[in-house]
Amino acid sequence: MKLYKTGMDVRMACRKQGFSGPTAGQAPDYIQTNVVILDKSDALDFLIFCQRNPKPCPVIEVMDDGKHEAELSAPGSDIRTDVPKYLIYRDGEIVANESDLTQYWNQNLVTFLLGCSFTFEHALIRNGIKLPYYSEGKNVPMFITDIDTVPSGKFSGPLVVTQRWIPSDKVVRCVQSTSRFPSVHGAPVHVGDPGKIGISDLSNPDYGDPYIPLNPDDVPVFWACGVTPQAVALNSKPNIMYTHDPGHMFVTDIQDEDMAAF
Amino acid sequence: MKLYKTGMDVRMACRKQGFSGPTAGQAPDYIQTNVVILDKSDALDFLIFCQRNPKPCPVIEVMDDGKHEAELSAPGSDIRTDVPKYLIYRDGEIVANESDLTQYWNQNLVTFLLGCSFTFEHALIRNGIKLPYYSEGKNVPMFITDIDTVPSGKFSGPLVVTQRWIPSDKVVRCVQSTSRFPSVHGAPVHVGDPGKIGISDLSNPDYGDPYIPLNPDDVPVFWACGVTPQAVALNSKPNIMYTHDPGHMFVTDIQDEDMAAF
Repeated sequence: MKLYKTGMDVRMACRKQGFSGPTAGQAPDYIQTNVVILDKSDALDFLIFCQRNPKPCPVIEVMDDGKHEAELSAPGSDIRTDVPKYLIYRDGEIVANESDLTQYWNQNLVTFLLGCSFTFEHALIRNGIKLPYYSEGKNVPMFITDIDTVPSGKFSGPLVVTQRWIPSDKVVRCVQSTSRFPSVHGAPVHVGDPGKIGISDLSNPDYGDPYIPLNPDDVPVFWACGVTPQAVALNSKPNIMYTHDPGHMFVTDIQDEDMAAF
Repeated sequence: MKLYKTGMDVRMACRKQGFSGPTAGQAPDYIQTNVVILDKSDALDFLIFCQRNPKPCPVIEVMDDGKHEAELSAPGSDIRTDVPKYLIYRDGEIVANESDLTQYWNQNLVTFLLGCSFTFEHALIRNGIKLPYYSEGKNVPMFITDIDTVPSGKFSGPLVVTQRWIPSDKVVRCVQSTSRFPSVHGAPVHVGDPGKIGISDLSNPDYGDPYIPLNPDDVPVFWACGVTPQAVALNSKPNIMYTHDPGHMFVTDIQDEDMAAF
C-alpha cells in the first residue's frame, strides 16, 4: 500500500491518480473527516442535529452553499473529487457508489465535514494501546446502540458507536487521552458491559470487522461514531445526501494537535 | 439584592415578578446564556458563523423555529418572558429595550443560546482569583479587538473580548481552569500586552466598567466574549434580531460541572 504523507497528498491522489482505498494510516498527522453533503433546504435542521449531538457529529467545517472547496480546513481542496469513494443516497437508500461527484454537483449543496475517530486512535496508540485492525487493513467494529440521538427536524435515529478492546490497566489513560479531542468524538460514551447500550454480540458488528482481545481481561470501550449521520440518513430519508464511503475519508490540512482542547 | 438559587427561580422571577436586573451572582451553580433570536432566513448563516467562531459563540442550544421553550437546557422555560431585559435590533440599530418579547413573537423566529463567561468566572474564583466587579455589582470590561471573526453569509465583524486582571503567579492556573469549559468561551484568547490585539487603553472599555488591578504586576488576560454576536449584528444588519441586554442573561437548568470537558 502506497503511503501518502500529507492531507494534500491524499487529496491529490484521489483527484488525479484515482486513489480509492481506505484512508486509515494515510497522512497520519492530519485530521480526517466524515463527509455529509445535503441540499440547503435540509442544512439548518442537520446543523442543529449536529449541535444537539456533538459526540457523534463533531463539526470541523461547514462549507457555504455551492462551495466545493474546504477553505478553512483544506485550502485548494475540491470535495467533489478529493474523497476516495462516495455513497449517494436518495430518500434514505444507497443508489450509487462513485469515485467522483462532479456530475452531481449543484449550487444548493451544503457540505459538512465531521470529525473522525482516526485522530483519537493516534492518541491511543501513542499511549501504548494496540489497535490490531489498523495494521491488518481492517475496519474498526461499529454497532448500532439503543441510545437515541436528540432529533432535529427530520433527522433522528440511534447512536452508532465504535468498539475497541482496552487493557484493564489502560482504561483510565484511554479516557484521559481521548478526552483531549472533543472535536473528533472525544471521550468514550461507555466503558464495559455492551448490553447496557443495547449491544448483544461483540463478534457480530453492524459495520466493520470484529477483532479478538489481546488479553482475556481487556475491557470493551465504546465511542460515538461518525457513521451515525449515515444511520440517521437511512432513518430520516432526505431527498438527496452524498457521503464518503465508510473508512474512505476526506483528509484535511489540520494536524492532530491543532484539534486538542488542552 | 434578592438572590435566587436556581435557574428556574430566576426565570420565574423574570416572568412573574418583573425581575429586570443583571444576573451576575444569581443562581451561581447554573449556566447562564447569551440570547440571539433571528428570523429563520438568517439562521443557517448564523449557526455556521457560530461553528466557525466557537470561542465567542459557543452554542448551548438552538431551538426549533417558532419554539419559545428551551426544551433541552431549561424545560418549561419561555424565552419571550424569562430574560430580565431584551434589546431589539432592526437593520443593525437598537430600536427598543423591552422586558417581554411576547408581542414580537412569530413562528419564523429561531433562538440561539450561547455560553457566557459567568461559568468560567466561577472556576477562576474557586481557584483563588479575585474579580472585584462581581461584588461591586459592576460589569466586566469588554473591548472590541482588531481580530476579525471568520465570516458566514452576512455575519462578520470584530472579536469582542472581556478583560480580567490575573496575578502573575496565577496565569497558568487561570488558563488551565478555564480550558475545562470550552462551551462557555473556555481558554483565554490572549495573555498580556493589550496592544497585540488592538486595544489601546484598558481604562476605557467599549462596554462594561474598567477596574484597577489589585497588584501592580497583575497581568491582563482576555477571553472571547458573547457580546461578539451583538457587535456582529451592528456590522451585519439582519432585518430583525432580538437579544438579551448585556449582563441580563437567560439562566438555564444546566449546572457548571455539566459543561466541563474533563
